[in-house]
Amino acid sequence: MIPGYFMKIAEINLTSEEIDFITLEEKEVKAFIGGSGIGAKLLYGYTNHKTDPLGPENVLIFMTGPLTGTKAFSSDRFEVITKSPLTGIYAESDCGGRWGEGLKKCGLDGIVIKGKAKKPVYITIKDEEIKIKDASELWGKDTFATDVLIKEEMGPNSHVVCIGKAGENLVKFACIINEGRHARAAGRAGVGTVMGSKNLKAIGVLGSKEVKIAHEQEFNQFIKDLSSRMAEQTEALRRYGTANGLEYCESVGDLPIKNWYQGNWEGAKKISGQFMAQTVLKRNYYCGRCIIGCGRTVEITKGKYKLEETAGPEYETLGMLGSNCLVDDIEVICKASELCNRYGLDTISTGSAIAFCMEAYERGLITSDDTGGLRMEWGNGDALLGMIEKITSRQDLGQLLGEGLIVASREIGGNSDEFAIQVKGLDFPAHDPRGKVSVALGYATSNRGACHLQAFTHDFEDGASIADLGYPETLDRFEITGKPKFVVDFQHLMSMFDSLRCCKFTVFGGMTVEPLVKVLNLVTGWNFSKEDFLKTGERIFNLKRMYNIREGISRKDDTLPPRILIHPRGGGAKDNLPYLNKMLNEYYQIRGWDEFGIPTEETLKRLELKEYIKEC
Amino acid sequence: MIPGYFMKIAEINLTSEEIDFITLEEKEVKAFIGGSGIGAKLLYGYTNHKTDPLGPENVLIFMTGPLTGTKAFSSDRFEVITKSPLTGIYAESDCGGRWGEGLKKCGLDGIVIKGKAKKPVYITIKDEEIKIKDASELWGKDTFATDVLIKEEMGPNSHVVCIGKAGENLVKFACIINEGRHARAAGRAGVGTVMGSKNLKAIGVLGSKEVKIAHEQEFNQFIKDLSSRMAEQTEALRRYGTANGLEYCESVGDLPIKNWYQGNWEGAKKISGQFMAQTVLKRNYYCGRCIIGCGRTVEITKGKYKLEETAGPEYETLGMLGSNCLVDDIEVICKASELCNRYGLDTISTGSAIAFCMEAYERGLITSDDTGGLRMEWGNGDALLGMIEKITSRQDLGQLLGEGLIVASREIGGNSDEFAIQVKGLDFPAHDPRGKVSVALGYATSNRGACHLQAFTHDFEDGASIADLGYPETLDRFEITGKPKFVVDFQHLMSMFDSLRCCKFTVFGGMTVEPLVKVLNLVTGWNFSKEDFLKTGERIFNLKRMYNIREGISRKDDTLPPRILIHPRGGGAKDNLPYLNKMLNEYYQIRGWDEFGIPTEETLKRLELKEYIKEC
Repeated sequence: MIPGYFMKIAEINLTSEEIDFITLEEKEVKAFIGGSGIGAKLLYGYTNHKTDPLGPENVLIFMTGPLTGTKAFSSDRFEVITKSPLTGIYAESDCGGRWGEGLKKCGLDGIVIKGKAKKPVYITIKDEEIKIKDASELWGKDTFATDVLIKEEMGPNSHVVCIGKAGENLVKFACIINEGRHARAAGRAGVGTVMGSKNLKAIGVLGSKEVKIAHEQEFNQFIKDLSSRMAEQTEALRRYGTANGLEYCESVGDLPIKNWYQGNWEGAKKISGQFMAQTVLKRNYYCGRCIIGCGRTVEITKGKYKLEETAGPEYETLGMLGSNCLVDDIEVICKASELCNRYGLDTISTGSAIAFCMEAYERGLITSDDTGGLRMEWGNGDALLGMIEKITSRQDLGQLLGEGLIVASREIGGNSDEFAIQVKGLDFPAHDPRGKVSVALGYATSNRGACHLQAFTHDFEDGASIADLGYPETLDRFEITGKPKFVVDFQHLMSMFDSLRCCKFTVFGGMTVEPLVKVLNLVTGWNFSKEDFLKTGERIFNLKRMYNIREGISRKDDTLPPRILIHPRGGGAKDNLPYLNKMLNEYYQIRGWDEFGIPTEETLKRLELKEYIKEC
Repeated sequence: MIPGYFMKIAEINLTSEEIDFITLEEKEVKAFIGGSGIGAKLLYGYTNHKTDPLGPENVLIFMTGPLTGTKAFSSDRFEVITKSPLTGIYAESDCGGRWGEGLKKCGLDGIVIKGKAKKPVYITIKDEEIKIKDASELWGKDTFATDVLIKEEMGPNSHVVCIGKAGENLVKFACIINEGRHARAAGRAGVGTVMGSKNLKAIGVLGSKEVKIAHEQEFNQFIKDLSSRMAEQTEALRRYGTANGLEYCESVGDLPIKNWYQGNWEGAKKISGQFMAQTVLKRNYYCGRCIIGCGRTVEITKGKYKLEETAGPEYETLGMLGSNCLVDDIEVICKASELCNRYGLDTISTGSAIAFCMEAYERGLITSDDTGGLRMEWGNGDALLGMIEKITSRQDLGQLLGEGLIVASREIGGNSDEFAIQVKGLDFPAHDPRGKVSVALGYATSNRGACHLQAFTHDFEDGASIADLGYPETLDRFEITGKPKFVVDFQHLMSMFDSLRCCKFTVFGGMTVEPLVKVLNLVTGWNFSKEDFLKTGERIFNLKRMYNIREGISRKDDTLPPRILIHPRGGGAKDNLPYLNKMLNEYYQIRGWDEFGIPTEETLKRLELKEYIKEC
């Protein structure tokens, strides 16, 4: 056992160029673990409801977790936490790749970026040496080139996170890219926009320290014992990537089609993981410490959309830039994905914005005069690519689309708010709440707005199961009974994943609740029970909620757009419409939240969050 | 048969003092009947989405219908139609009393008030002589005094509509009062505010003409034959008024209690119609041509709330100023009702505003510093009376409450929007959608915002029935199957009632669909079938919807506040939460409205409303 497990965080002020270090004591770490747990706690203190997300007073927090950089499968991950310029509320964004472990090897568990540089800068961290450098040569470069240039400077073992032009230009859903052309993204809610607002182009890390493990031998053995099962059970992911089940998703009414309007679509089979494997797929990509290898690299050797080997589109990207825009040309989607990666755009929000734009175009609310000549017809791949350019460079309608759906629909008018598919300002990812009722509740209550990862129930309501969370069998995806509890339980587990920092896909390979608890205890030397573990997840989830409560979020915001609530998509989702209000009532009761969706004093005390009571 | 049944409408411009007359030809009258049907058609033409409800460009339309002033039971009614300053959308407000027939006897079916007088004026209409007169002596007087003064001038057979101080002071939910201290009100959506904005204090009418009947003898016989049944079947209304069923409403979770939070309340029995009959009731009040006599007059001979004989509180008033504020003192409610009548305040919105204020007070969002010293505790009758004064005179918090719940909750903040119980800006009347699911759909789709009268299903989902509308038996009030059709059918029938202008309570005495059709045909000489009749109701309902569509209303607005959707009230409503989105989807399909709740081109063509297609 390590006496006094602690975390060390660098606080880098870009205004003053001062660098401080914060040490989080064991008690605090035990309560909030790391990743978005610690991130949320820090963000709550640094910011408040008056903080302008793009002002120097906002902070951008990069956090690893206790498991980051250990052998605990797919653990080379970090979380970015900030106040979102897209939603105005709490934001976290998770990223794989190879930067998290790099940071940790510098002896740092996290970094807090404060203030705003006078002109573009980048940061290099070599073990404990942190430098703020002039980025005038990097500014304007895409993320692939930036990665190459910084690696040339720091060496081949260094790792880089950076923004592209979208972040520089303050597109509200800019992301942060790690691993250059292998592009892993901290994608959602505009974390790259905040980085851009601080004039921060990139952070390179190169460390040589060891990651601390309390019971190393036992830990190694435990992981070794799990390895073959992990590899076996994730084979489909390895073969076909996250788009492995895309056709199935289409068949059960999960895949978004035509801006969430349509039930079925023939094109699904032309954008599936299986189809990619036969066409554009070059090889697997593995994040650090991963044996699953769901990542794709793709190559297109000829034709209009020729592409050097680079990261291929994930399921979400295929859903949002593909089926949701009725684009069934896999080469176009690969190209679109590459552009988003180069420019540092969230592929989910980008696809959402373009599908929204296509619907507005079809309805005559915008014309090609607005789009700088682009004919935004459904399925028009070149228009899709053209609009990605325009969103990035903020030209023509791209300027407005880059502000997010709420602003764009307000400006475009003509009832376009009726097909702006978001919750709390965050665009839907590619899973349809009409196909699986738990997804409805998950999106409505996710702390960062519409998000499939905060509850991650979509795979477990219909398909996989987690016996040691109490769900040994597959469920009826249209039945609401029991679903509030189901969502709550998953939100707690996922809060822990986002704090421990290892990949959620490890669940499919056996890294369920009990093994996670075991691994956490072996790494930290703690003695968490399963109950402690899930209660910590609950604490973290509630802390994020309290951040949002301070921002004015309440029950009225825990909802879904009318298209999802009132329009049955048909197809595999049949005529199902989520009975959200009924589920929400039960959900609040289970959570110990009051009628307005605010955690009660009793609940906050039970979760040892009583210092957060006063401010609500 | 009268060749060329037509309507004559006076257009009175208060800016220019010009008076014109419009004649509506038979074809137009057949299509929109009268009352709010013709009113909506006229309003659509006079105003548009840029019209400021309180600007001189808004119009205030008073309309009677073909039945007004005939023997067709309780037909002395008129409708006021305008663009609402409370909601910003279509408004209609129905009124009994004795003014409608008075207007009609002047040879006029309606009046359109345009422009704005430079200083306070009133209008007198004696047969065809219309005069605009200086109202400086009347301005500031209450409605009772104003009625007396104009009757002194015009004679005892004249009838007066007027506003009180609330309308003069532009309280957003000011009403128009007829019959002075017997106070019948065109209550809802701020029609009195519009009257105030035009500097128009009152309109007196004194006519001597006969109301036209095509087949008079047959008509008289038909009414005579129905009379005894009408009298018999409405006996409970006559004995105990509209509050006859108040205790039952409490028992089934229909009566609002503590700002729609609570399930049951002992106090109900102290504010019921039966209790009134034993205490404050003086006698019945009958509107013109009425044999039901649900109206109450009350008298309090001694004590703090001493009251000369005047109009007593209706069920809605008892629910909103009584149970919803936990006030169980019938004398206080009688006094509050009298104040609202004198000042010209809608008792429903006033009760809603005060219950909202009491909840904000309980939650510490406002204090007695804000209320000018009033302690707004639940059940505090004197605070209730004090706040009515403050709303009227726009003092302290009364200023803000007089702007309506949306504005008030935005200003007060602290999640008070969570307990602002309204739809489209109009406060709920005293029927709870959790107790009867059709009420949920009715409120969400009512063209003037939350309204029990536009569908009027609350009495027919649980209790009464209308066989010739297809509902011979009572329904399961928690079951949603079949309810969308039920609401649609009732909305059509009620659109006809609001256009024909006779009291909806006549339904209970046998004036159901077929007798209504008969009566309409006998009066006008037309040959409407039942299908024509209901289709006309549908046409009128859709026309009002198109008015609102032009104002930006769509599916997103067809909803209910979160307390009603997500918080089960318990009591007789049990844990029911309306599955509104499911019902709404079916409702749109039945109506032939598109996904956004907009009538399709096909629907508008079917309803002969094709001239309204272009503007949407």
